Amino acid sequence: MSAVMRGTVYLGPRQVRLRDLPLPRVEGARDAVIRVTRSAICGTDLHAYRGELPGFGVGTVLGHEFTGVVLEAGPEVPFCPGQRVMASDIIACGRCAACNRGWHYQCPEVSLFGYSTVVGRPVDGGQAEYVRVPYADVVLSPCPDDLSDEQVLFTGDVLPTGFVAARQAQIVPGDTVAVVGGGPVGTIAALCAMVSGAGHVVVADPHRARRQALAGHGLQAVPPGELAEAVGAVSRGRGAPAVIEAVGSDEALSLAVAVAAPRATVVVVGAHHSAAAPFPSGSAFARELTVRFAVGDPILVRDQVTALVQAGRLDPTVLISHRLPLADVARAYDLYDRKEATKVVLVADDS
Amino acid sequence: MSAVMRGTVYLGPRQVRLRDLPLPRVEGARDAVIRVTRSAICGTDLHAYRGELPGFGVGTVLGHEFTGVVLEAGPEVPFCPGQRVMASDIIACGRCAACNRGWHYQCPEVSLFGYSTVVGRPVDGGQAEYVRVPYADVVLSPCPDDLSDEQVLFTGDVLPTGFVAARQAQIVPGDTVAVVGGGPVGTIAALCAMVSGAGHVVVADPHRARRQALAGHGLQAVPPGELAEAVGAVSRGRGAPAVIEAVGSDEALSLAVAVAAPRATVVVVGAHHSAAAPFPSGSAFARELTVRFAVGDPILVRDQVTALVQAGRLDPTVLISHRLPLADVARAYDLYDRKEATKVVLVADDS
Amino acid sequence: MSAVMRGTVYLGPRQVRLRDLPLPRVEGARDAVIRVTRSAICGTDLHAYRGELPGFGVGTVLGHEFTGVVLEAGPEVPFCPGQRVMASDIIACGRCAACNRGWHYQCPEVSLFGYSTVVGRPVDGGQAEYVRVPYADVVLSPCPDDLSDEQVLFTGDVLPTGFVAARQAQIVPGDTVAVVGGGPVGTIAALCAMVSGAGHVVVADPHRARRQALAGHGLQAVPPGELAEAVGAVSRGRGAPAVIEAVGSDEALSLAVAVAAPRATVVVVGAHHSAAAPFPSGSAFARELTVRFAVGDPILVRDQVTALVQAGRLDPTVLISHRLPLADVARAYDLYDRKEATKVVLVADDS
Amino acid sequence: MSAVMRGTVYLGPRQVRLRDLPLPRVEGARDAVIRVTRSAICGTDLHAYRGELPGFGVGTVLGHEFTGVVLEAGPEVPFCPGQRVMASDIIACGRCAACNRGWHYQCPEVSLFGYSTVVGRPVDGGQAEYVRVPYADVVLSPCPDDLSDEQVLFTGDVLPTGFVAARQAQIVPGDTVAVVGGGPVGTIAALCAMVSGAGHVVVADPHRARRQALAGHGLQAVPPGELAEAVGAVSRGRGAPAVIEAVGSDEALSLAVAVAAPRATVVVVGAHHSAAAPFPSGSAFARELTVRFAVGDPILVRDQVTALVQAGRLDPTVLISHRLPLADVARAYDLYDRKEATKVVLVADDS
Repeated sequence: MSAVMRGTVYLGPRQVRLRDLPLPRVEGARDAVIRVTRSAICGTDLHAYRGELPGFGVGTVLGHEFTGVVLEAGPEVPFCPGQRVMASDIIACGRCAACNRGWHYQCPEVSLFGYSTVVGRPVDGGQAEYVRVPYADVVLSPCPDDLSDEQVLFTGDVLPTGFVAARQAQIVPGDTVAVVGGGPVGTIAALCAMVSGAGHVVVADPHRARRQALAGHGLQAVPPGELAEAVGAVSRGRGAPAVIEAVGSDEALSLAVAVAAPRATVVVVGAHHSAAAPFPSGSAFARELTVRFAVGDPILVRDQVTALVQAGRLDPTVLISHRLPLADVARAYDLYDRKEATKVVLVADDS
Repeated sequence: MSAVMRGTVYLGPRQVRLRDLPLPRVEGARDAVIRVTRSAICGTDLHAYRGELPGFGVGTVLGHEFTGVVLEAGPEVPFCPGQRVMASDIIACGRCAACNRGWHYQCPEVSLFGYSTVVGRPVDGGQAEYVRVPYADVVLSPCPDDLSDEQVLFTGDVLPTGFVAARQAQIVPGDTVAVVGGGPVGTIAALCAMVSGAGHVVVADPHRARRQALAGHGLQAVPPGELAEAVGAVSRGRGAPAVIEAVGSDEALSLAVAVAAPRATVVVVGAHHSAAAPFPSGSAFARELTVRFAVGDPILVRDQVTALVQAGRLDPTVLISHRLPLADVARAYDLYDRKEATKVVLVADDS
Repeated sequence: MSAVMRGTVYLGPRQVRLRDLPLPRVEGARDAVIRVTRSAICGTDLHAYRGELPGFGVGTVLGHEFTGVVLEAGPEVPFCPGQRVMASDIIACGRCAACNRGWHYQCPEVSLFGYSTVVGRPVDGGQAEYVRVPYADVVLSPCPDDLSDEQVLFTGDVLPTGFVAARQAQIVPGDTVAVVGGGPVGTIAALCAMVSGAGHVVVADPHRARRQALAGHGLQAVPPGELAEAVGAVSRGRGAPAVIEAVGSDEALSLAVAVAAPRATVVVVGAHHSAAAPFPSGSAFARELTVRFAVGDPILVRDQVTALVQAGRLDPTVLISHRLPLADVARAYDLYDRKEATKVVLVADDS
Repeated sequence: MSAVMRGTVYLGPRQVRLRDLPLPRVEGARDAVIRVTRSAICGTDLHAYRGELPGFGVGTVLGHEFTGVVLEAGPEVPFCPGQRVMASDIIACGRCAACNRGWHYQCPEVSLFGYSTVVGRPVDGGQAEYVRVPYADVVLSPCPDDLSDEQVLFTGDVLPTGFVAARQAQIVPGDTVAVVGGGPVGTIAALCAMVSGAGHVVVADPHRARRQALAGHGLQAVPPGELAEAVGAVSRGRGAPAVIEAVGSDEALSLAVAVAAPRATVVVVGAHHSAAAPFPSGSAFARELTVRFAVGDPILVRDQVTALVQAGRLDPTVLISHRLPLADVARAYDLYDRKEATKVVLVADDS
């Protein structure tokens, strides 16, 4: 092991490179350093990649979905070198009043791997050979022996987000569920909705390739403009008492509200940034809707999602369209940016 | 009893008159006719009075808060002539799938007394000597012997609305609760929040007279611009985990969201009509808020609010600033319109 | 149509006969008379059949699971002659405070078809050619066109009971669920638990034939003495956070509590009659359990269970082991009593 | 500061003595040592005092309700020497899966101060001059500046237990609440029920002195044999939809179930130890009751109860009947044992 490693560095819009970087070190008692075996590119990474996030710093080491093996751990971290672990994308202290209530995203210390200054202070990401994990006793969790690295990889973000979306939607078995957005989060949310007893799930996505992939997972997919009609058909006119918005745009939120049945719950897991999104408050009032904004919390629900995977009820690896060596990360981003990939997994050289 | 009666008729913006009208009759098996003993003017009536409701018909008989005595009842109505009853402002069939779930405002047959065509088909209102009550077996409820007409009068609208607001806000005893709007609904919501265990309730209202009235009820009241600071002070910086919006404007909704603590529930009972209210979705997402739009449902909760009044824990008559004979209804509207009255009760001639 | 019909009459322990009886008539405005097309024998019927229910009257017309076609309806019943309907086994007024909250089994007027004086006043049952249905506007529901009589038959009792059991158990997707009792209710509860996202469901039943049938439905079944070990194995030692007791005996309740994980919910849908069942309160306290006694309510949940069947997520007809003409009802009871049948459907002559 | 201190030692049934003991020391990184300023005797201590707890070891240092000042803290404990802190009676690791869900009493490492081997491994109690606190980063919490030691003293046990009882009972404002047992926990539970909106609270206790104390707190108190009638009267025959059992005996549990209204929630916070308590399962089924066994969790709810005290909505010091110096601990136990005291506070010499 040398004192340098390679990691994915953001150099500007649509420019990422694998660069030599200092090997991360345990800096505090609750730190761990992980040798990354698998990492993935998330839809959120694309916003950074495209230069759409104001203040996203050149030089940021990217990546918030990764799994690996403990290289070194501080004295307060209950994991041994060599132990397989999965990581939460949310970094939280685990000790404050918010964390005590299980509200890790509301922790005053919250940050995200590889996300520059967008949420909290910058922490280098995991699309790299090694990554330092702060609050590792909270952020990491042991990987079950019967699950592969790829099976647990998405417990760091996409899987908890989709799971939380379906949970918060308060699905009654038999309900029709509408999902706006058929990317990885929307797909997992839709699969979780099926597992939770949905009678029918209809996913809206404008991209034909995504709709085909959704169909391949046994899900009904339609263009956004056809969502209302499709929901009406399968629900026999009752509408969708549970709606999941997995995009994060003004249009997606409006569509989600539009197809909601009276008294429906609309769960918004798409990341919103608007200070004044146009919202149909009249319609929401007339139908007495509940709109819940929710961030998937891996720390809180990874045991639950792992149990689902172990029981064979959910296979998150269906999301993977490409596996590339870490060395090809620039091509991986390009594929994903051009929507030729649904989910790219970056494989460490020696794993 | 003659074949005519007097009722309050809307003749155009800021024009109401007591007019002779045909005495209402039982028309269907589930109808009842009530001799009104007390009625009230609601904030919603003002929107009609001011001509702010598109399509509100000239000639509408106004009034959706009233109580009285059964004059005549159809064969499917389990009340006797002479029985004291309280009425729901929401008219619902009580038989459909929505009603079976307790979602009376979502009944396909829903309408409101004295509200022209704004919600459902027109039904004459109760600021009159007599009123016909459709679905009277569902809409009416017996008045407990130990409560006066004025004590039950507000079970038809304001009291259930304030009660539902506090219930939906999921107050944990000790919580700080913020209420946007100090009119009758906001006042009752604030009092219900106190009864539900709120540590502190802070009400925002721009009108000094209303703030004084709130203070008289033992509630802290501040101008809207000072709400955030006041909430911060009493909550020791924790913010308001429960917020109630009792106005129904874009500004009120924005303020409610602004003062909400992380993971708060914002209950919106103010009536919204906008198709594109500017909504701070970024902030709502970052704090993982839940926004619930709710309509007070007298049919569902009148037993509960009546129990509160009977137990002496809530006195709805504190809302009443003026009592006037029905004959003075025009003056009553004028007083209310000029905010010189908080709540006017119209008293029947012979009661 | 003659003025007589044939119906199943209880004549004493293990004696039932098809007898000529007066054709039922609409007696009140809310009555309907149904021509029964399918009826079923329920486990509860066996208690009566065996003479185990004190005060169960000789001469009782049996049967509380049936479906059929409206023959005649009173003026307050919104169904037409010829309309296909499904019936709730629970008869409730639909108008009182309890019914308004959806608590039909707590209605002061509650009774059950074919159940003598055990619950409320006697009402003749539906293992007959015709049956009078009181409060038919509440007790009956239209049968969807795309479902057969057999597909809706169990919406009258077994299906709502199993559905409610799974709902009240508050299953988190991935949870291990233990079910005590593998009869029709336990089977449906287990299937509903799977539909609701259970990672694993383990059913305990002492009868080998039942365990084989359960295995045929894709469910894991073990003898009661092996339940704890089986639950420990599939839950990786976590225990069952959700337990369903579908027997109604002291032993079943004790077993259910014994296999519950810390903080588990134990739902008891088996009918209990004991005034002093030995209950492990020390263990329940130490693990902070919640024990919910629940009666399946067809009136409340039949729309939901019907939606599950329509969506193809649950097939209640898997319960049926035998179909016999109504004329063979005595043999049907005997088969069921000897546990040679899991569920016998009695078929009307002309359907 | 010498190397010895004085602490309350259990020497056998009804024998406690203040003895010289080694001054406790920080033994692990998460330990703290507290100089105790106030401690209290709890009803649970009496079971030990009377020799009713099998295996309760002679030599145990008693006491699980105490507050004080940090003397020394391990490196992982975020409190400074001199800082005022309140302690949870429940000791839990704060790191395991159970703790992560907020289920501290289900932590595999759980123990209680001064409770010998009854729950977990023995940990010396706090009726002493000093006490060692394991997992002090989790077990301790800073004492707010505006609250006195006595105001926070009961946040370690009685206050959270009564608070949790009222919370779990799911009181709807206006509900009648029945409380079985008028000791400190029952009293606080009753006060919390009032704060949570109960229309009426009726407490049953066989001791006249306790009933008088309850009346002094504005609560209705009756002998157990009169509870059903009293509940019927104030609820106008509706019964108690929320019942709290704060005794922990078979009789108390039976009484709690007996006075429960249909669909009621019965919360059991009295400590049960029976393997076969006679339980009225028939009645519980017929009324569809929910029975929740719950342990008050100071770690989880101390912020909430503290907020209630700070807001002036609950004054826990009303429980205190006697204040004695620690040196008089033998007399304090004797007073409490003879029910001449409701709650004795032991005051440190120099505070």
